[in-house]
Amino acid sequence: MKIGFIGLGIMGSRMAANLQKKGFELVVTNRTRQKADDLLAGPARWAESPAEVARQVDVLITMLSTPDAVSQVALGENGFLAQLPAGSIWVDCSTVNPSFSRQMAREAKTYGIHFLDAPVAGSKDPAEKAQLLFFVGGDAQDVVVCQPLFAAMGRQAFHLGDTGMGASMKMVFNSIMGASMLAFCEALALGQSLGLEQKTLLDILSVTPMLAPFIAPKRSKFESGQYDTEFPLRWLRKDLQLASESAYEQALPLPFLNLAKEIYTQAMQAGLADQDYSAIYAYVSGQK
Amino acid sequence: MKIGFIGLGIMGSRMAANLQKKGFELVVTNRTRQKADDLLAGPARWAESPAEVARQVDVLITMLSTPDAVSQVALGENGFLAQLPAGSIWVDCSTVNPSFSRQMAREAKTYGIHFLDAPVAGSKDPAEKAQLLFFVGGDAQDVVVCQPLFAAMGRQAFHLGDTGMGASMKMVFNSIMGASMLAFCEALALGQSLGLEQKTLLDILSVTPMLAPFIAPKRSKFESGQYDTEFPLRWLRKDLQLASESAYEQALPLPFLNLAKEIYTQAMQAGLADQDYSAIYAYVSGQK
Amino acid sequence: MKIGFIGLGIMGSRMAANLQKKGFELVVTNRTRQKADDLLAGPARWAESPAEVARQVDVLITMLSTPDAVSQVALGENGFLAQLPAGSIWVDCSTVNPSFSRQMAREAKTYGIHFLDAPVAGSKDPAEKAQLLFFVGGDAQDVVVCQPLFAAMGRQAFHLGDTGMGASMKMVFNSIMGASMLAFCEALALGQSLGLEQKTLLDILSVTPMLAPFIAPKRSKFESGQYDTEFPLRWLRKDLQLASESAYEQALPLPFLNLAKEIYTQAMQAGLADQDYSAIYAYVSGQK
Amino acid sequence: MKIGFIGLGIMGSRMAANLQKKGFELVVTNRTRQKADDLLAGPARWAESPAEVARQVDVLITMLSTPDAVSQVALGENGFLAQLPAGSIWVDCSTVNPSFSRQMAREAKTYGIHFLDAPVAGSKDPAEKAQLLFFVGGDAQDVVVCQPLFAAMGRQAFHLGDTGMGASMKMVFNSIMGASMLAFCEALALGQSLGLEQKTLLDILSVTPMLAPFIAPKRSKFESGQYDTEFPLRWLRKDLQLASESAYEQALPLPFLNLAKEIYTQAMQAGLADQDYSAIYAYVSGQK
Repeated sequence: MKIGFIGLGIMGSRMAANLQKKGFELVVTNRTRQKADDLLAGPARWAESPAEVARQVDVLITMLSTPDAVSQVALGENGFLAQLPAGSIWVDCSTVNPSFSRQMAREAKTYGIHFLDAPVAGSKDPAEKAQLLFFVGGDAQDVVVCQPLFAAMGRQAFHLGDTGMGASMKMVFNSIMGASMLAFCEALALGQSLGLEQKTLLDILSVTPMLAPFIAPKRSKFESGQYDTEFPLRWLRKDLQLASESAYEQALPLPFLNLAKEIYTQAMQAGLADQDYSAIYAYVSGQK
Repeated sequence: MKIGFIGLGIMGSRMAANLQKKGFELVVTNRTRQKADDLLAGPARWAESPAEVARQVDVLITMLSTPDAVSQVALGENGFLAQLPAGSIWVDCSTVNPSFSRQMAREAKTYGIHFLDAPVAGSKDPAEKAQLLFFVGGDAQDVVVCQPLFAAMGRQAFHLGDTGMGASMKMVFNSIMGASMLAFCEALALGQSLGLEQKTLLDILSVTPMLAPFIAPKRSKFESGQYDTEFPLRWLRKDLQLASESAYEQALPLPFLNLAKEIYTQAMQAGLADQDYSAIYAYVSGQK
Repeated sequence: MKIGFIGLGIMGSRMAANLQKKGFELVVTNRTRQKADDLLAGPARWAESPAEVARQVDVLITMLSTPDAVSQVALGENGFLAQLPAGSIWVDCSTVNPSFSRQMAREAKTYGIHFLDAPVAGSKDPAEKAQLLFFVGGDAQDVVVCQPLFAAMGRQAFHLGDTGMGASMKMVFNSIMGASMLAFCEALALGQSLGLEQKTLLDILSVTPMLAPFIAPKRSKFESGQYDTEFPLRWLRKDLQLASESAYEQALPLPFLNLAKEIYTQAMQAGLADQDYSAIYAYVSGQK
Repeated sequence: MKIGFIGLGIMGSRMAANLQKKGFELVVTNRTRQKADDLLAGPARWAESPAEVARQVDVLITMLSTPDAVSQVALGENGFLAQLPAGSIWVDCSTVNPSFSRQMAREAKTYGIHFLDAPVAGSKDPAEKAQLLFFVGGDAQDVVVCQPLFAAMGRQAFHLGDTGMGASMKMVFNSIMGASMLAFCEALALGQSLGLEQKTLLDILSVTPMLAPFIAPKRSKFESGQYDTEFPLRWLRKDLQLASESAYEQALPLPFLNLAKEIYTQAMQAGLADQDYSAIYAYVSGQK
């Protein structure tokens, strides 16, 4: 099974490296070639375009930042979709909205291509350690075929139903992440404004059941004021936007998550777009 | 050491029972006498008014629902403050805002009474099992004196600084609780509107680091749609209001927590005031 | 100059009638033919599809409800764009987002068709009385050509710049409309909850400078609780969504307008989608 | 009839001057004496404390910034309430919440003093030109007695019912003002971010029914970026807080107005507290 991999950012580069480690033969491309250097030092092959990747592989994985980027790489100039062999599988690990996934599945089908939406839970560190979770939507048979790939890159793959169900789960996941982080940071800022020490607050909250486990590892960032990027604030905001659009399509009110989205946008405007999303603390505590 | 206890609701009755179990001699009163029946079956004594409690005790504990209720019982007709022996200690375990605690401390001081703000973390079950956490503000010496009481009712008491610091910590604690619960419920509603099963969502989120530990025990409520009250939605909303007022005094913007407060108010208007606060799920998912 | 008109809803039917009154020769189509009856009683001609309209006209006007509807009618099966004569003008009066207008302009250009975005200010009544305002984006020359049409349907046409500038102005316009209405209604509900009579509130606010003129004519709706539809709540919510998406593209935070959007969505969920958008009052005052 | 006047800020100084112009004999005091200079150049007399004012007058008017300030001047050290002659009238023109007005009325009653809550609509300019509107709560007889005073300072006085109804109306009034201004400013910022000129936006919106009349006079502030203070942002935020607390007491959800309050708080944190409240535009458009 030859694997194409497009999108070698923070996440994609680590996922591809794990595939390579497990012996999968890779053909890769990326906007900037330099990010492929480590892979190309191994047996991976470089392709000049998405189309060129497509012509050489059985399964193609995309790990890109936005629906627009995915659409461009799949269907734009030198896009891969028209070049994939009939019967091959496209696994989109990008975080996109479910209706976009369904649209891509329809496009793929017109070319005889199978489609899985398979976004991941976990950021830089779990990506590196092959500890990601995959949320997968699509045909069961295709999930079985791709199981060895998921196993190489992650801890577990959940098959959640038809196309779009993986993307849907990811919307839920990142919505909780973004909103809980913001809730925590506003409360922390409140405590400090009332005279409590940050250290005291973090110490005590850590021994209560209030703290979601994903927040604890961010402690050093809050303490140092250095928000080294594991998951950029910019992409969290994008994911909240996708969740908002998905809710819009369902006529479901989500006032709370929509406001979270806007506060992250305020933080972005304040210059925090490329820092870790936990930098929202710097914004709500008035440091930025 | 004779202990007065005023306020025998869900929390107070269990806290007083634990004091009695450890052998403390109690004098109690409550708006409705019936709630004291279990205690009075033991060695506790009933008093007809807060003032009458005060005249018989060395330490007086209050566990009431709002700042107004505390103020009324302390300073209103037959209030206890003027009747406590000079040098005695008033421990207010009610959830109130820090500036109110400071006001009570000033009032107490005019009568020569010491004051501790000592709100608790934990609801019905931890109260019963003496597993509460106490967040305490006030003089270190008074905290030492009351340590055996805290030990009888809880797992740990944190002395966080001067008057008001206990109340401040509690603001932080309940703010995170209310806002994280709401974030979780909106995300859950989103997932279901997109076609995911509630069971699937809860199963998967449980194995991710997204879920704050305090949410997991609410699962059966979400699943059954029965929100048996551990902590009434009404009081959570009140606590968010107190947090909002505290932030107002500090000129700290808290848009996210303020919106949480308003959504809980919407749920209250929809008839959920006396159910467990996790019933916010029924509201945001459109079931109410 | 032969004019095509597609979309004969509350607005479109009245706009087309005014064109006919001024002697313009019309070819029309609509999802349901019945809505064209009045026009067809005059000299207007019916066409079975958008494509069939397109083949007979020099200028084609669309007045549809959403970007998707516009896209479908222009580019879907039997869409009009491929059938319009080269050099003809498509005037889209629908309320859509500016980036969608620009996308349509690009599509049009590939067929040699000129494009104007020309959404309107004003609802049912101004539409009937030819008192609409047109917010127009596109080439000055095309605006000149269409001036007689705008004059037949409205009071004034503002040429605001390149493609998308008309749509942008409309975003602004409806955002103010929706958010000011909601602000007014929450304040009215507050006054009533505090014991003021609705009549007193409306009487007094009417003599102050607080009330935007567009609100005054809604008074009888607030008083009667009958929200006969001039502009459906559903479409206002859609417009706020488009404004939200436009702001997202510009990385501009709009927390207030986003929350307005969500509260209208709550009202929609409460069953008010097809009533006049001023029915938001019924929602925020707890009557629904 | 001798009149006491306490609180000579932007509003109070102009109101007192109008009373003096109409021949009323004034006794005044203020935190800083200098602000009384103009009045004292006329026949007004200075008093060293609120208590000293009280001993010399039949009607006492207060125009202060917050409930706390009113409470302090009435009931604090050298407060006026205990010194007013029995049967005299206290007219509180400050913007306070209705439950505070009711509390003051109760306090006044214990001294045999009549109480009117009589906040005003209108800022600096209408205050100067005696064009204020008075929203009055209290006994009809007292309103009749004070009518000449209202006539000297304003255009009209509305007697709206019992104590607190004047304050309630003012809550409504300022809520609309603050929220409509914010809605307008976010929409304006949206338009500019989409490429429309500020001048174009303001020109066009001025000829539509979208613009509440109170917004038009702020145009030069938006254009110049100079927000000379007519009504400080700090006090608008305070009024929104009072409205929020009033709604809390009524268990009425006001998500939209609460968010407005928080965004004004953000603007305050950004340094705009003492500028005109229309400076919220500088904040939401990202200039601050």
